Amino acid sequence: MAMTTRVYNFGAGPAMLPESLLKEAQTELLNWHNLGVSVLEVGHRTSECVALLEHAERTLRELLGIPSNYQVLFLGGAARTQFAMIPMNLLYPEEQAGYLVTGVWSHMAFSEALRLKRAYCVASDEANQYKTIPDPKTWEFKEPTSYIYYTPNETINGIRFPYIPKTKGSTLIADMTSCLLAEPIDVTRFGLIFAGAQKNIANAGLTVVIIREDLLSRIPNPPIPSMLDYKIQAQHHSLYATPPVFNCYIAAKMFDWIKAQGGVETLFHLNCQKAARLYQYLDSSDFYTTKIDKEVRSLMNVCFSLKNEKLEPEFLHLAERAGLYALKGHRLVGGIRASLYNAMPMAGVDALIDFMSEFAKEHSR
Amino acid sequence: MAMTTRVYNFGAGPAMLPESLLKEAQTELLNWHNLGVSVLEVGHRTSECVALLEHAERTLRELLGIPSNYQVLFLGGAARTQFAMIPMNLLYPEEQAGYLVTGVWSHMAFSEALRLKRAYCVASDEANQYKTIPDPKTWEFKEPTSYIYYTPNETINGIRFPYIPKTKGSTLIADMTSCLLAEPIDVTRFGLIFAGAQKNIANAGLTVVIIREDLLSRIPNPPIPSMLDYKIQAQHHSLYATPPVFNCYIAAKMFDWIKAQGGVETLFHLNCQKAARLYQYLDSSDFYTTKIDKEVRSLMNVCFSLKNEKLEPEFLHLAERAGLYALKGHRLVGGIRASLYNAMPMAGVDALIDFMSEFAKEHSR
Repeated sequence: MAMTTRVYNFGAGPAMLPESLLKEAQTELLNWHNLGVSVLEVGHRTSECVALLEHAERTLRELLGIPSNYQVLFLGGAARTQFAMIPMNLLYPEEQAGYLVTGVWSHMAFSEALRLKRAYCVASDEANQYKTIPDPKTWEFKEPTSYIYYTPNETINGIRFPYIPKTKGSTLIADMTSCLLAEPIDVTRFGLIFAGAQKNIANAGLTVVIIREDLLSRIPNPPIPSMLDYKIQAQHHSLYATPPVFNCYIAAKMFDWIKAQGGVETLFHLNCQKAARLYQYLDSSDFYTTKIDKEVRSLMNVCFSLKNEKLEPEFLHLAERAGLYALKGHRLVGGIRASLYNAMPMAGVDALIDFMSEFAKEHSR
Repeated sequence: MAMTTRVYNFGAGPAMLPESLLKEAQTELLNWHNLGVSVLEVGHRTSECVALLEHAERTLRELLGIPSNYQVLFLGGAARTQFAMIPMNLLYPEEQAGYLVTGVWSHMAFSEALRLKRAYCVASDEANQYKTIPDPKTWEFKEPTSYIYYTPNETINGIRFPYIPKTKGSTLIADMTSCLLAEPIDVTRFGLIFAGAQKNIANAGLTVVIIREDLLSRIPNPPIPSMLDYKIQAQHHSLYATPPVFNCYIAAKMFDWIKAQGGVETLFHLNCQKAARLYQYLDSSDFYTTKIDKEVRSLMNVCFSLKNEKLEPEFLHLAERAGLYALKGHRLVGGIRASLYNAMPMAGVDALIDFMSEFAKEHSR
């Protein structure tokens, strides 16, 4: 029975973690570092916990080649808080911020910026239901612009920027929640990168922020809430308040795991293969369909539907029984979504394709 | 060897959790609810996760007798965010908020309110290094006051309000991070109660908020960041952003554990006995000393020092070797601190007193 053993978890986040990591966490859960206490109970200012945070940061820096003029912050709570922190800290008086609206998440970030400060839309594919990324020739910039914001991978619509946007000199900010550590990046191209943990980093409740130091010194004085002030969080090395220790512990293990796999480049290569295999199957099928433009298809979130949408509940039901978990598309867009983060092995993709072929065969008669 | 088994963890937070709870979490870690996925990987909108949050809320309501006109929120991140959320949401235009400053935490909350809005100090014992709670006859209120804020238990100084402060009709707000669920409370006396999880609820990374509904309808419109807006969080039943699922899972287990112990009243009785035994020993000793006024001594955090402070490093070293963990006082005040939250059994207190007697005997010659 699939239900009593581990399944392939295609959830978009919280998402699959490597089984070896979970087993380690399980073994250590009652007694961490031979301290006689659980990592759930250990003080955040103990030498063991401080060393844990340092190790996590060091490994992340190594994996992504983060230069020394960038700070790394491990912040408690959801990445969505960044939607407010970014304009509050980095949108300067008398200026605006430009948003590339290419899916549900960048749209939400844009709305939050508008709620708090002055922001504008550089380009949007909303009218087209986010099927592509508008041609850069059509993008409109305003002066003065504090920063340009974009979402390299949109999980709900399954769209990926195949390039880093040009910003006419403005600071570039990226929500990499669903792609950080899944592909190599040139950190120096960005002013700020952030990522919620629950895709490629750890369990939900942690947000990683990578911020260029010169931006910290430009942050205006109060009244930004202290917890939302990057400067304060950086000065305290993520220990301004009690950090989510357990999430940091899982993140540290994840970074080690990525390193052991051969690093980000190796995983990117595998991620490309995983996505290519599934898209190739979709393209060859007349039972399934995907509407996203080929050039901007997500590597992490493969969104598709059954041509006969009425069969989707049965598809999802049987998939789950076959050990293929959480394939339901986001409630805003429906359909099917297979998320293929770092922890998803090729065997999971193959199992999915086998199931899809079988299902198509049985329902195509 | 004490180091290879579980120890008594006297840390002030993150703090000790019941061993039975940790063992359950350990057993289930790779396969939750027979889903074939870990609770670290499960989607927050799955029926299982929604049921988990509902169960946690229902049990908490039952344990504390929370009336139906109060909302319960499970928010990601540290309780310190509340220091800003409270004035941002509940300090109305042209009004002020009054703070009872009885220790380091209430002082920090007061500072944050001052950073963002207009606040005043109702009473403070700062000049006296927080040894007592100023006589209510000396408290000064201003008109109009949106709310009065206090910290029923101050973990760093080891001070507890033995009564609920009178507010001359203003809404009362309490930071119960270190005492929620450790003693019975009359929720109807409060407009808002909040608590970081890492004392009596769960591991760090979750904040529980209990808020009276009429306050939600009075929250001003933007520009409060959406994540910091109680109204938005309440409308979405804590699912506005991805909540810290694992912390909620531990919290649900903790609420069940408290219920199984006989509820809050039973634990309060035990907490009183635990603290009384330790204070009684301190009062009878001329080797140790505690400076907090008897009437306001904390039940949760027993702060004391050795009359010969030079012996404290050795005391802490030997205590740890004897399986008595994290007894060091907060870095701001020094000395020794024994935190006796719900999960600390009487046997832990007895082991501490035995150790202290032995240490005193050996160093009193």
